[in-house]
Amino acid sequence: MKKKRVAVLGATGIAGQQFVAALANHPWLELRRLAASERSAGKRYGDALRDASSGQVRWWADGEPPAQFLDIVVEDGPALNVSDVDIVFSAVEADVARILEPKYAATTAVLSTASAFRYEDDIPLLLPGVNMDHASLVKLQQKNRGWKGFILPQPNCTVTGLAITLRPLHDRFGVKRVSMVSMQGISGAGRSPGVAALDSIDNIIPYIPKEEDKVRREARKLLGKAHARGITDADIEVSSTCTRAAVLEGHTEVVSVELAKPATVAQVAETFRKAGAKIAKLGLPSMPAELIKVHDDPFRPQPRLDRDAGGGMTTSVGRIREEPLYKNGVKYILLSHNTKMGAAKGTILVAEYLMQQKIL
Amino acid sequence: MKKKRVAVLGATGIAGQQFVAALANHPWLELRRLAASERSAGKRYGDALRDASSGQVRWWADGEPPAQFLDIVVEDGPALNVSDVDIVFSAVEADVARILEPKYAATTAVLSTASAFRYEDDIPLLLPGVNMDHASLVKLQQKNRGWKGFILPQPNCTVTGLAITLRPLHDRFGVKRVSMVSMQGISGAGRSPGVAALDSIDNIIPYIPKEEDKVRREARKLLGKAHARGITDADIEVSSTCTRAAVLEGHTEVVSVELAKPATVAQVAETFRKAGAKIAKLGLPSMPAELIKVHDDPFRPQPRLDRDAGGGMTTSVGRIREEPLYKNGVKYILLSHNTKMGAAKGTILVAEYLMQQKIL
Amino acid sequence: MKKKRVAVLGATGIAGQQFVAALANHPWLELRRLAASERSAGKRYGDALRDASSGQVRWWADGEPPAQFLDIVVEDGPALNVSDVDIVFSAVEADVARILEPKYAATTAVLSTASAFRYEDDIPLLLPGVNMDHASLVKLQQKNRGWKGFILPQPNCTVTGLAITLRPLHDRFGVKRVSMVSMQGISGAGRSPGVAALDSIDNIIPYIPKEEDKVRREARKLLGKAHARGITDADIEVSSTCTRAAVLEGHTEVVSVELAKPATVAQVAETFRKAGAKIAKLGLPSMPAELIKVHDDPFRPQPRLDRDAGGGMTTSVGRIREEPLYKNGVKYILLSHNTKMGAAKGTILVAEYLMQQKIL
Amino acid sequence: MKKKRVAVLGATGIAGQQFVAALANHPWLELRRLAASERSAGKRYGDALRDASSGQVRWWADGEPPAQFLDIVVEDGPALNVSDVDIVFSAVEADVARILEPKYAATTAVLSTASAFRYEDDIPLLLPGVNMDHASLVKLQQKNRGWKGFILPQPNCTVTGLAITLRPLHDRFGVKRVSMVSMQGISGAGRSPGVAALDSIDNIIPYIPKEEDKVRREARKLLGKAHARGITDADIEVSSTCTRAAVLEGHTEVVSVELAKPATVAQVAETFRKAGAKIAKLGLPSMPAELIKVHDDPFRPQPRLDRDAGGGMTTSVGRIREEPLYKNGVKYILLSHNTKMGAAKGTILVAEYLMQQKIL
Repeated sequence: MKKKRVAVLGATGIAGQQFVAALANHPWLELRRLAASERSAGKRYGDALRDASSGQVRWWADGEPPAQFLDIVVEDGPALNVSDVDIVFSAVEADVARILEPKYAATTAVLSTASAFRYEDDIPLLLPGVNMDHASLVKLQQKNRGWKGFILPQPNCTVTGLAITLRPLHDRFGVKRVSMVSMQGISGAGRSPGVAALDSIDNIIPYIPKEEDKVRREARKLLGKAHARGITDADIEVSSTCTRAAVLEGHTEVVSVELAKPATVAQVAETFRKAGAKIAKLGLPSMPAELIKVHDDPFRPQPRLDRDAGGGMTTSVGRIREEPLYKNGVKYILLSHNTKMGAAKGTILVAEYLMQQKIL
Repeated sequence: MKKKRVAVLGATGIAGQQFVAALANHPWLELRRLAASERSAGKRYGDALRDASSGQVRWWADGEPPAQFLDIVVEDGPALNVSDVDIVFSAVEADVARILEPKYAATTAVLSTASAFRYEDDIPLLLPGVNMDHASLVKLQQKNRGWKGFILPQPNCTVTGLAITLRPLHDRFGVKRVSMVSMQGISGAGRSPGVAALDSIDNIIPYIPKEEDKVRREARKLLGKAHARGITDADIEVSSTCTRAAVLEGHTEVVSVELAKPATVAQVAETFRKAGAKIAKLGLPSMPAELIKVHDDPFRPQPRLDRDAGGGMTTSVGRIREEPLYKNGVKYILLSHNTKMGAAKGTILVAEYLMQQKIL
Repeated sequence: MKKKRVAVLGATGIAGQQFVAALANHPWLELRRLAASERSAGKRYGDALRDASSGQVRWWADGEPPAQFLDIVVEDGPALNVSDVDIVFSAVEADVARILEPKYAATTAVLSTASAFRYEDDIPLLLPGVNMDHASLVKLQQKNRGWKGFILPQPNCTVTGLAITLRPLHDRFGVKRVSMVSMQGISGAGRSPGVAALDSIDNIIPYIPKEEDKVRREARKLLGKAHARGITDADIEVSSTCTRAAVLEGHTEVVSVELAKPATVAQVAETFRKAGAKIAKLGLPSMPAELIKVHDDPFRPQPRLDRDAGGGMTTSVGRIREEPLYKNGVKYILLSHNTKMGAAKGTILVAEYLMQQKIL
Repeated sequence: MKKKRVAVLGATGIAGQQFVAALANHPWLELRRLAASERSAGKRYGDALRDASSGQVRWWADGEPPAQFLDIVVEDGPALNVSDVDIVFSAVEADVARILEPKYAATTAVLSTASAFRYEDDIPLLLPGVNMDHASLVKLQQKNRGWKGFILPQPNCTVTGLAITLRPLHDRFGVKRVSMVSMQGISGAGRSPGVAALDSIDNIIPYIPKEEDKVRREARKLLGKAHARGITDADIEVSSTCTRAAVLEGHTEVVSVELAKPATVAQVAETFRKAGAKIAKLGLPSMPAELIKVHDDPFRPQPRLDRDAGGGMTTSVGRIREEPLYKNGVKYILLSHNTKMGAAKGTILVAEYLMQQKIL
């Protein structure tokens, strides 16, 4: 695969750092430009990572900041030159994304972790193994907006594992109702400094603003059908309660599903095990061997033991049982890595798919 | 109220220590005897609390071991003399309870945190504000078994807050289906040494053996109807997933309920606020001012902020909202203190009620 | 004691909230005014406590925000009217303190948790049981600066327990060298949002900027001698390493001391037990029964078990043993509550002392 | 290198599992036999890992239990057949080690994490980069005891990083006095179930029985001189305070050293950086590129960020400063992985060295 040249927007925040880390030795992608807020513009990336008051290098991704990128001079986000890059990975907040992403999309592909454009009719959310056929909307988007590039936002990290597990159930048995309770890792709270330790240790925070609405809207869109004029959401009732637990990384979700057709526990497990078989064959560098790993041990998945399965790209499922509350009910627990598959690495996997499909 | 004399069985374990702590300055109850396993028998209580290998005093209840009890010589459980006590508070494991509790019940009231006898037809579970009328079964039990005393087991700590909140909903609107997901505190795992720190920090354990079955059976029994020949369980479908979180104390539970009749969020909140009004008037020393406290702030309840409400005897509820999955659906989050209302202090409150009602 | 009227400056931050909480039912002090930054000015205190983006009430002190103060309208710090108050408790950051505190001190007593004026020659640090005689410098300060009021800064929360334990050793045996390693609670990091959970869980942060220099300077000043022209620092070498641990509240400090004269472990323990006897007799409302509590159990003190000793005002000491590195060496571990004795409640205790001594 | 065949004794405990994990793809070592207590004997290893009451597979090492070893039938420790193995890695408790290790040492090399034989004159502790020349005592041991094999115990995990950093300082500047305060990870507490979560979350345990004495004795022995009749301990005063922090893995140690000769901070850093150069050249599979990594950022090392440096085999050092308490004083903070370099992987590195030197 001929390498594509990329820029990372919002490169000093948690999500941006994860892009940078994931691009360090990527076989198909070459990091060329970094942009951040005005405060960082003009500094070496290595210096821009330092906390202004303490001088401490703040790095939340795995390992150390990649040495090969430390000398890149950070550009000011609004002035980022995209003429010589093929892809902009955007990791800015929604309000900034709303202004900057269309500007770059005029000429260039923008893949984003921001929520700004997730709910527009001609802008699909893409999730590997779930709805890659929605990529067909890129053309509609370009036509509607007169862009040469496009915007592809990544779905919320909490809906990632949910949609990955619902998709094969929906295809085989039909999904009618979904109840979900999450215990989310604190890194999902996003940008520095995130959740305060005073709120997190020995505690659970029972509310994450806007999260439950995002889960519902994005699950229905991801499981929906793409057609010439947009996406028709799946007609599935989704109700969730999202909480924050004292877990560093990994979102645990307890899921109950009403199916349209009867399914045994063994059939559900088999369905999960086969999920993603098609995309797994494409040879994408970030694609894990298993999209979903099924545990028989009822004490799994656990965030600390299982979040890094498949390099953080595998959704782990356990405790598959009948759900007696519904006629054709099934329940299970899933674990998804919110800052790997649910963030930068997930977006990069989408980019790989688009390259492989020659959409990019 | 004339004081009753009490013994605590299993006095060196976590649950037993909590009885001892709660009895330290109790206005109606006077601790006379302590019993534990053979290993502790014959030692001063203060010495029996020491870890055999390290010599460390192990005390998990609030504050320090009460000085006035440290010189009581611990008796061997099977040989405990109950001739001069009115109540035995039993905090032993189920297998020991199955042998010892009937022995004492022959002559004496036994109030127990053990699960051994929870599922017998003539043995009620009593929970203040929920089903104190089930106390009428004591007579049946005595007749059936030829006992002068009786056994009253406390329900499981995970069902406590659930039943306390379901009862007023059931009385007013009718409860048909209940879905519950718990994030339980680690002290609920019971006896020393409990959950290993290696399993708990930065983690969630997705399974607690037998817990979900207990929740279902005990919720249906607690909400059932007592009659001359026993208890008819409430015809409510209860489905739960019980997990262990990195929280020291306090069980958080996310609850979805299908009601028989429509109820607005405001009506549900009002129903919770009025719960327990009757028992609150009886002047029982351990009864909190509010059986249920309703929070409007969506960030509450939180275990660390709210578990000690009402001295750990109040169930805190928040995030009351419609549950779109059901026709007359409501959902909420509750927090209950598993080692206060859900353990020794809850059992002591039952004893107070029985004294006030002259059953004891 | 006739009540004094007080204002709290910086009332919405962590330290300010702790003043507010401690003043809720204070027998000698009456809260009249609250001030904070411009952002809060003009709002009810209850509203000013809400987080701007989420609407969540943020309260880090014990219990709930005191109902009787919620309707006080918060004033803008620089415009606070102090004409009808006797004391300003200041809980602002150092840079703000440097500007506002002298302004109020022109007419009014200012007791502050800020570090701005800690190192001026005519401004003593006062710590109960350690150096209350340094209060004599108030007159010098007023003369030097032409103030009717004065500024009394509270020492850093990390030096509190250290100075409290060194003082009686210094008086009896002479202290020559002190080595200290702290494991500090995260609430000591001060203002919202404090330490990020991502940095704290499963971790130790080995550095707290400026802390070690503060410990050295303030310990030497606290143990120094007040005279007509200022304070002569104690000639003690103090070397520390300050770290942040995954503990919510309470600073644990491992201390090694070289004494001028030999002291047995028993003598050291006795010296600690007798510390503060003089001030304990004055009947000050916030003074604990024991200034220092000595534990014989080597597993104590522990932050979670011992930080609330004496209402958070007692320093707990354990593991007293010989320090073989020095000729007359002793070592021990201490625990001090950083947001009680080390913050607002400690400052209030100083105010009580000044009232009792008629300095205020 | 021709592969050696090995057995692991105590294979179901934490330390034993770490041997098994580290042997999974070892280029020089081939796992042939597993032994554990009578309870596990006769079971498949995969089954022996299950908790008896819950059925849960308990695995504390990285990743999953290696599939290739799950079908090995576990032998009863006392009856382990060592006739066809070259090395026994022993991970049993000290009391069991005292009985079994000499039995196997009669014919076979025994490398052990147990403390049983650490303090015998003809039994060296070996630590890579510190004292590999002490291996010469193996001959003395064989002669004294009439063994064909030998026992080589690994030093305590708390002394590992300390000795690794003291050795190059001692060689270049001379070490006279050492003060050390540790904040140890909970996995260091050894066997299942280890430290209780109730003791660990939001807490520090100020005492680890016997640890401080081990640190002193083993540091002096490791830094001592081997000669024909045994080892002469280094004449260094070592005083430590060992505590347990809420950290999963990694021991943080704050170290103050009095040197015999003056050393600048830069010289100390350079000395650390050059440490282990000799052994690093031998091509041992488990040897990290850097024995000691020096951090300039004062916020490092942190357990979560740095414990896995060099695959958990590198000791990380930061905050090197002058120690004003001593004439030629230096202080620093170190971090060492207690269950990698401080346990099985460290022992395996010793085995590799012995193979390379043809002692084994």
